[in-house]
Amino acid sequence: MSLLVVGSVALDSVETPFGARENVLGGSATYFAAAASLLTKVSVVGVVGEDFSLPDLEFLLKRGVDLDGLERVPGRTFRWKGKYGFDLNAAETLDTQLNVFEHFSPRLGPQARRAERIFLGNIDPELQMRVLEQAERPRLVCADTMNFWISGKRAALLELLPRVDVLMVNDGEVRQLAGESSVLKAARAAQKMGAKAVVVKRGEYGALLVDGAESFFAPAFPLADVVDPTGAGDSFAGGFLGLLDRLDSNDPAALRQATVMGSTIASFTVEEFSLDRLRSLDLAQVRRRFDAFRGLTHFEPLPEHVG
Amino acid sequence: MSLLVVGSVALDSVETPFGARENVLGGSATYFAAAASLLTKVSVVGVVGEDFSLPDLEFLLKRGVDLDGLERVPGRTFRWKGKYGFDLNAAETLDTQLNVFEHFSPRLGPQARRAERIFLGNIDPELQMRVLEQAERPRLVCADTMNFWISGKRAALLELLPRVDVLMVNDGEVRQLAGESSVLKAARAAQKMGAKAVVVKRGEYGALLVDGAESFFAPAFPLADVVDPTGAGDSFAGGFLGLLDRLDSNDPAALRQATVMGSTIASFTVEEFSLDRLRSLDLAQVRRRFDAFRGLTHFEPLPEHVG
Repeated sequence: MSLLVVGSVALDSVETPFGARENVLGGSATYFAAAASLLTKVSVVGVVGEDFSLPDLEFLLKRGVDLDGLERVPGRTFRWKGKYGFDLNAAETLDTQLNVFEHFSPRLGPQARRAERIFLGNIDPELQMRVLEQAERPRLVCADTMNFWISGKRAALLELLPRVDVLMVNDGEVRQLAGESSVLKAARAAQKMGAKAVVVKRGEYGALLVDGAESFFAPAFPLADVVDPTGAGDSFAGGFLGLLDRLDSNDPAALRQATVMGSTIASFTVEEFSLDRLRSLDLAQVRRRFDAFRGLTHFEPLPEHVG
Repeated sequence: MSLLVVGSVALDSVETPFGARENVLGGSATYFAAAASLLTKVSVVGVVGEDFSLPDLEFLLKRGVDLDGLERVPGRTFRWKGKYGFDLNAAETLDTQLNVFEHFSPRLGPQARRAERIFLGNIDPELQMRVLEQAERPRLVCADTMNFWISGKRAALLELLPRVDVLMVNDGEVRQLAGESSVLKAARAAQKMGAKAVVVKRGEYGALLVDGAESFFAPAFPLADVVDPTGAGDSFAGGFLGLLDRLDSNDPAALRQATVMGSTIASFTVEEFSLDRLRSLDLAQVRRRFDAFRGLTHFEPLPEHVG
């Protein structure tokens, strides 16, 4: 069991109706690793600048995360600034500074190359491909992407998709990729492009897994208080792949459990700013909420006499 | 087992990205009865004008629907004209002509008075109360309402709620009623106002049942093609109450199954314009999709070693 994530480690400035934070820990690889490390052994490949305070990642080291692949190079760390309105489903990006991330070229060390499962965070699909070229024998590859690459690097993305087991995107992205407004049809179109399975993240409306001809739906855990949705998608991915790796399985039943695990961990992430909730989270709490998810969705079959 | 619906019988003109229909059969009581009559015996109380073609309801009579409470009076039938964009979740109302519905005062005949379960369609809460005053011994009362009554007839609505077992509204309505943006908190606030349980319909995102302290979530059935969302909410209500009446139960497990049945039947309704799909639907088809819903939401518990 071993899991690799390649993505951003960032400093975020975030404003939501419930408060604001400046230059706090963020980034797809960070959220992913914080979530997945509750379940399995994770290696991170990414880059930070000289302004980054490595002690901020101490809690990941304590969870056994391998940060050897996190380069520190001259320059400033990737920074993102965004704002959410009362509709917490979509962020308005106020500023993006790529900084050291602009010339990031993922280099996998010996341990990372042997990872059995890989999460390709939302980076240039050409870089995502370069990661796969270095990987020795991944048993499962999961990739995220975004509107910028879907329109700007479409050819590279289409070349990547046949090597992707699980494409993990939000509704808008899968619609854009497929040019199709029905999310279900769009997911099926993405399968025709090569992705074996597609997970569509729908924010407060949950997640849809389309795996072969089967569909599975996990609701978002109904929360009384959502404070900051940043990182929900990446911690979803971390819970998803973390559980698959922990179960050491890619079978259909495991993919369903992984989808629920993704929703479960994401539901914690959004309860506080930045990685604050993930930092204090433990697996026992996660398990209790996973079990509550079953209570939330379980219903009995119809009696024979109906129908 | 007996079910009463009080609501509108209408002529709708609808435009969606997939086509348009003029002066076709519509109305909350009509959609409700078409759905519920697949499962149980339904009585309709409502009103139509001289321009209404009663043979259009022949298919309901064939399903055993009691239309004795459907008055026909001088004047024109209630008419609604609306339009949906590609986001099929919300209709833009272009025109509403109350016509004979303006002076509608529900009168329950002997059979309707003895109904065990009652659906109060979206009408003036004072009229909804008048229905309850005529009812002898309902075992379950379910009520719909809308923004117009929530703001314009708030006092009457608040008087009604303690007599309501299931308040069935959409997200916007429950948020408006409670003055609370979290749907879960809003549903709990509606319970404090007196409703025993609350069902929040969320269109393509499914439905949430809050019953006592328990929550249950049913996704919408993922459909490749949605043609016309009109009537989805009322046929949801018909499936919901139809199943409760068929099972002759109001217990928590039945409420969950009823929520899934509501989603199931609503998912057929939106596949064609007006009541076209409900007209041709049979219980065997409904049952197959209900069973598929289980496939869509079922997942295994976590193994002991996780957590």
